[in-house]
This record gives sequence, structure tokens and C-alpha cells, in this order.
Amino acid sequence: MSQQSTPNEARPNEAWFTEAHQASGSSIGFRTERLLHAEKTPFQTIEIHKTTDWGNLMVIDGCVMLTSRDNFLYHEMMTHPALFTHARAKRVVIIGGGDCGTLREVLKHEEVEHAVQVEIDERVTRLAEQYFPELCEANGDPRAELLFIDGIKYMAEAEPDSLDLIIVDSTDPVGPAEGLFNAAFYASCYKALRHGGLLVQQSESPLAHLELIKSMRSAMRTSGFSAVKTLPFPQPCYPTGWWSCTMARKGGDLSGFRERGALSKNFPTKYYNAEIHKAALAQPEFLREALGE
Amino acid sequence: MSQQSTPNEARPNEAWFTEAHQASGSSIGFRTERLLHAEKTPFQTIEIHKTTDWGNLMVIDGCVMLTSRDNFLYHEMMTHPALFTHARAKRVVIIGGGDCGTLREVLKHEEVEHAVQVEIDERVTRLAEQYFPELCEANGDPRAELLFIDGIKYMAEAEPDSLDLIIVDSTDPVGPAEGLFNAAFYASCYKALRHGGLLVQQSESPLAHLELIKSMRSAMRTSGFSAVKTLPFPQPCYPTGWWSCTMARKGGDLSGFRERGALSKNFPTKYYNAEIHKAALAQPEFLREALGE
Repeated sequence: MSQQSTPNEARPNEAWFTEAHQASGSSIGFRTERLLHAEKTPFQTIEIHKTTDWGNLMVIDGCVMLTSRDNFLYHEMMTHPALFTHARAKRVVIIGGGDCGTLREVLKHEEVEHAVQVEIDERVTRLAEQYFPELCEANGDPRAELLFIDGIKYMAEAEPDSLDLIIVDSTDPVGPAEGLFNAAFYASCYKALRHGGLLVQQSESPLAHLELIKSMRSAMRTSGFSAVKTLPFPQPCYPTGWWSCTMARKGGDLSGFRERGALSKNFPTKYYNAEIHKAALAQPEFLREALGE
Repeated sequence: MSQQSTPNEARPNEAWFTEAHQASGSSIGFRTERLLHAEKTPFQTIEIHKTTDWGNLMVIDGCVMLTSRDNFLYHEMMTHPALFTHARAKRVVIIGGGDCGTLREVLKHEEVEHAVQVEIDERVTRLAEQYFPELCEANGDPRAELLFIDGIKYMAEAEPDSLDLIIVDSTDPVGPAEGLFNAAFYASCYKALRHGGLLVQQSESPLAHLELIKSMRSAMRTSGFSAVKTLPFPQPCYPTGWWSCTMARKGGDLSGFRERGALSKNFPTKYYNAEIHKAALAQPEFLREALGE
């Protein structure tokens, strides 16, 4: 038997936070140094752990939300593909996104004139300010507005034809986020968007949540959206390590994007670039078959 | 606090196999029904678990090797990009790959006249035949040859200019596979390849093993390869859920592939298609910067 030079068992003196994702029968864990914070808010329980290799880790209701090390994948893919698809997104709303990482990426775009983050639980943002300060560095931007209210109600009451981009950066479709994954919510978004406007929503794992993706896409079309596209991307801290966002457009299609804009962008990214944007539009064979594209 | 409708803790009556990847401080686990087989071979320990959601699971020396459900990602990406890059790969050697999944994908290509699988541990293949029969369905193909000998020695003694494609489908660079990740081995491969021939090797996680990827690429170039390219792809069962293969060419470049061939392929795949091939050539920004591409 070969010498074991990379042991692969947790050692007795180690602590690990592990999320056992019951729906897919798989788990993901991180080795932790200590629990930095834990609280029960009116909406959920939030924990912050210090990990050995992934920076800080935020957990909500037992589900991994983000780590310092890999959140760039999710935040960049929830924002830049949509912003480089829209001709000029001036007014942006983020539903959820309390850690402010999505807001930070949105505000890297000069064309954005106003970005509202509508997070139901203010404690998520306050803890992000403390434990993920790098994600909150754009919170003081004069174009940013932070609201701590119900995003479903906010969208239902939004002025018609007033927005260019809505980003739904929520937890899984259970608990407070459940109402963000149905036709009633999509109808509110559709009404609030201008012609050519975009909705982009995190749409879970292509491998483990295919039925959810199909149902979201169907509900988006039912609500009037003329084109729908699902973009897969890697995300180590979420179940299966593979995640996706789904984009929907009010009028027009989703076949292209502002490639020259992406090539000449004047801000740094760690994952996103024009080539990666094109790559994310490619559909794995099983997904193409399942989604009928 | 919201109702918890997708519990995310392992339940008391459940069994889980978890690989705690010490090098990255992260773990991946699968819920299991029972242990189907365990043995210690002259080379390593092998376990086969029946999981609740991922089919069968093979574990070698505590490291997850494959599951029935997600191995298609790895096996397709270790083979089809290389085979659709080479003009006409007639003679193929697989080093490792004892589960036979790579061999099966290779033999889907009609242009392949002879494919040798050189696996050091015959027990891996015998257990794959029993627990992953779908991966072994091409083993009886008259073009297939299965050898159970040392792949390093095999390549060192291979006839010069005799091969079109070498696929290194090994375990991590520790234990029996350590000698497959250095310049001496790459020099053997280079010598054995015909002009225009390709070497493709699994190259671990873009996020967790960047230094290994850089060192592999550097050693490949030192050994004479004229072009090197790293292709990332999702792989839920491996650390970080994100994996890669690195391709090297003896003469010529790696900028294109036989796109029309990929578009009109006459065999089924679950992940790979021409669009996914192009997508895998896109380099995430941090990788592009780290690799100097």
C-alpha cells in the first residue's frame, strides 16, 4: 500500500463545518478555526466561522452562503453577464444579496446610475460589513441604496417600466426566499422592467436541481419574458460545486452580449472576462436536451 | 426563524462517506446505503459504497475516485477535447484509467484503431467490471487492449514516434501516481508521440492546485511540447467540485479543434459538445493571469 502523504480524514483535533445537502445526498465542508459569531434574527439563524483555508464562512439556517475565497465566482457571474448583455443598465435592483458582494460588482459598471439592494434581513448586511468588509467597499457609493424590507412586496409595488436590471440573489427556494421562485414574483419583475430589461436569478445546481431550473424557466416565460438562458458556473461552496444563474429578457433575445465592452472593461475581475461570458452561454449536452434548447 | 424544509445536517440514522481534503481544508461527502466491497491490493486500498443518490462510489486510499452519477464529466473531458483536436488519432494509450470509463469514451471514435489501457492495479478494473459495468462496456472491443503493468515503465519503453494520443488518467500526484507528474515521464511521452501528437493529463483543481498546474505545464514545455492548454470543467466528486485537464502538443499549436467533427459526432455524450469544447478553452481571469496566457 502506498504511503499516504495527503491524509483525507478529518483529524481528531480538527473542527469542520459540514452542510449535508439532503436533497442531493451530498455534503460540502470546510475546516474551521473557530466560530466568530452566531445569532438568531427574526428571519433566520446566521453563523460566521473562521476557516483554515477559505477565509470567513457565512452560514444561514445551516446552509453555506459564502466564503471569502470563492464568492467571486458567484458574485461576478450574477452581475457581469447581465450588465454586458444589457445595452446600458442605468437602474438596477438587487433582491436579497445582503452580503453586498453583488452590489459591489454592479457598481463597477459606470453606466449604472442607481442600484438598490433590497435585503429582508439587515443583520446579514451588518455581519458582512464586519466579517466580509471587502464585499461592502462600495456601500458608500452615492449610487447605492440599501433597503431592509421584503423584496417580494418591493417588486409588487415597483413603478412599471422603471428598471433595467433585476438581480435575484437569494437563498434557496425555501423559507423567506420561497416566494422569489414563482410566476407571481416574475410578473412583478416583468412589469417593473423597461423594454429590453433583464431579470437574472441564481438557479441552483445544473446537476442536482434540474427540475427547479425547468420550472423557473417555464414560469419566467409564462410571465411574459421573451428569452430565457441558463448560465452554469463553478461554485465550490454550494451543493455539487456547480451552480447556475438564469437570465430572462423583456423583449428581444439573449443570443449575444456587448463583447467589446467586456473586452475593454476598466475594472478588475477574478473569474469573469469576455471569453468566460461566451463559455457560460454554452450548454452541456444533458442540459441542452433537458431544456429543449 | 423560517421553517426548515430542506434539513442540512446528517441525520442520526444516516451513513456518509466523507473525504476531508487536507490540502484545501474542504471536504466532500456522499450519503451511503452500505459498503459493498473493501480490499487492500498490493498498491492501495479500494472501497465500493452504494450511495443513496450517486449510484456506486469508488474510493481509493480514502480519496473519491468516481461515482456512477457524475463520472461522465471527467471521462468526457479527458477524451473528446483531445480526440477532436487531433486530426486523426489512430493509436491511443491510457495510463491509469482502471475504471475503463476513459477507454469507453476513446473507443466511441471510429478513427481510433488501437487503444491500450495501462493500469497498474488490475483490481481496479475487476471491481469496475462488477460495480460500474456501464463503464466497461467497450472492454471487449477488438481495438481495446488492457494491460496491468506500470505505466511509467511502459511509457519509458514505448516505441518512439508510435502514438497519437496519451491520456494520463491517474490518481493524485502521491503514491503510485507521483511519477506521472514530472519531466522524466513527460519526456517519455514526448518521445513516444508522433509529430502533432497529444498528451492530456488530469490536472486537479484550478482553485486548489494552481501551483501543481503551473509546475506540470512548465515540465511539459521543458520536455519539448510546443503548446500547453488547461481546460477546466465541473466535477462534483473531486475537491472544490471544479477540476481540469491539461493538454500538451508535440509540434503545432492548441488554438483550434475539429469543430465540424464535434458538431456531427455520431455517438452520444452527456456533457461534451462542440460548444462545451470551445467553452473549456476559455480561461478564467485568475487562471489566465497565473498561467501567463
